[in-house]
Amino acid sequence: MFTRVWKHVVQKGDTVIDATCGNGYDTLAMVKMVADESARGCVYAMDIQNDALENASTLLEESLNPNEKELVKLLPMCHSKMDKVVPEASVRLVAFNLGYLPGGDKTIITKPETTLLALEAAKGILMPGGLISLVVYVGHPGGWAESETVHTFASKLPVNNWVCCKFQMLNRPWAPILVLLFKR
Amino acid sequence: MFTRVWKHVVQKGDTVIDATCGNGYDTLAMVKMVADESARGCVYAMDIQNDALENASTLLEESLNPNEKELVKLLPMCHSKMDKVVPEASVRLVAFNLGYLPGGDKTIITKPETTLLALEAAKGILMPGGLISLVVYVGHPGGWAESETVHTFASKLPVNNWVCCKFQMLNRPWAPILVLLFKR
Repeated sequence: MFTRVWKHVVQKGDTVIDATCGNGYDTLAMVKMVADESARGCVYAMDIQNDALENASTLLEESLNPNEKELVKLLPMCHSKMDKVVPEASVRLVAFNLGYLPGGDKTIITKPETTLLALEAAKGILMPGGLISLVVYVGHPGGWAESETVHTFASKLPVNNWVCCKFQMLNRPWAPILVLLFKR
Repeated sequence: MFTRVWKHVVQKGDTVIDATCGNGYDTLAMVKMVADESARGCVYAMDIQNDALENASTLLEESLNPNEKELVKLLPMCHSKMDKVVPEASVRLVAFNLGYLPGGDKTIITKPETTLLALEAAKGILMPGGLISLVVYVGHPGGWAESETVHTFASKLPVNNWVCCKFQMLNRPWAPILVLLFKR
């Protein structure tokens, strides 16, 4: 569902960031959105887990043509430092999947403190018309606290410059929450 | 925005209910969705305020052709009794705008107790594949309590039979909340 929202925002040739690369499925979707003949598009995909980056690398190797592969940078780094790799106001989309690596070690989870730093970094590098997209998993210990962190961050963004909304299931309390932060 | 959701659910010839008719704009949108040459469609539009029904009547008089007008029943009644006017499992859409009449007396508001009764009634008359749609205004005294009532009602609906979701602005705390309850 959230990738349908991305398609309304992302254009060919854009720079976008997959802040939680994981097994690479979102990275793959992003490459398809930005790739065109100009070869200007760029997808930065970050993760701190080597398992994740290896899985993603395999998926991208199998799924992309050589020109598309050129557009991806897999980075073994914490997303809280994303503002070190791209200039200010240059990125159309920053996407987060908060929680743990599907199929991986469930004790390795994103943490509210670094998530908050990453959101601040994302805010700085996002261009006007850009989107911070978050899928917040809440079904693991610490999930709700992280959701609260995101909620508080979003509620403080100035209404003149940001449209911030949340999409939530009501009768499935452990279903992930989708948060969309549009910069005007 | 919510009328775009309705269009995915409502079909020509359907029976639908505007549970808070107000000035009639949603009623009008509903008539356009159900009306076709079969003349089977039916829109029940309810309100307890005569001002609202008069405004709605004027709007519909101006905006509908004679065949379309035939499909509307403006009812001076409380929506908590909607199950008295239509059979069980016969309605495709029940729509609520919770709060006060725009441009009207702001002390006359929908109340959690009757809203809950109305939701129970709506649940009974909705057909499989139907939708209960709520726009919950929270910027007036009692608004948040009503929102809580809706939230609690929705969270108890069995996940096997209902898809219940909420769409909310995060940096505009007084913006209305959209709640959608899809019956499978």
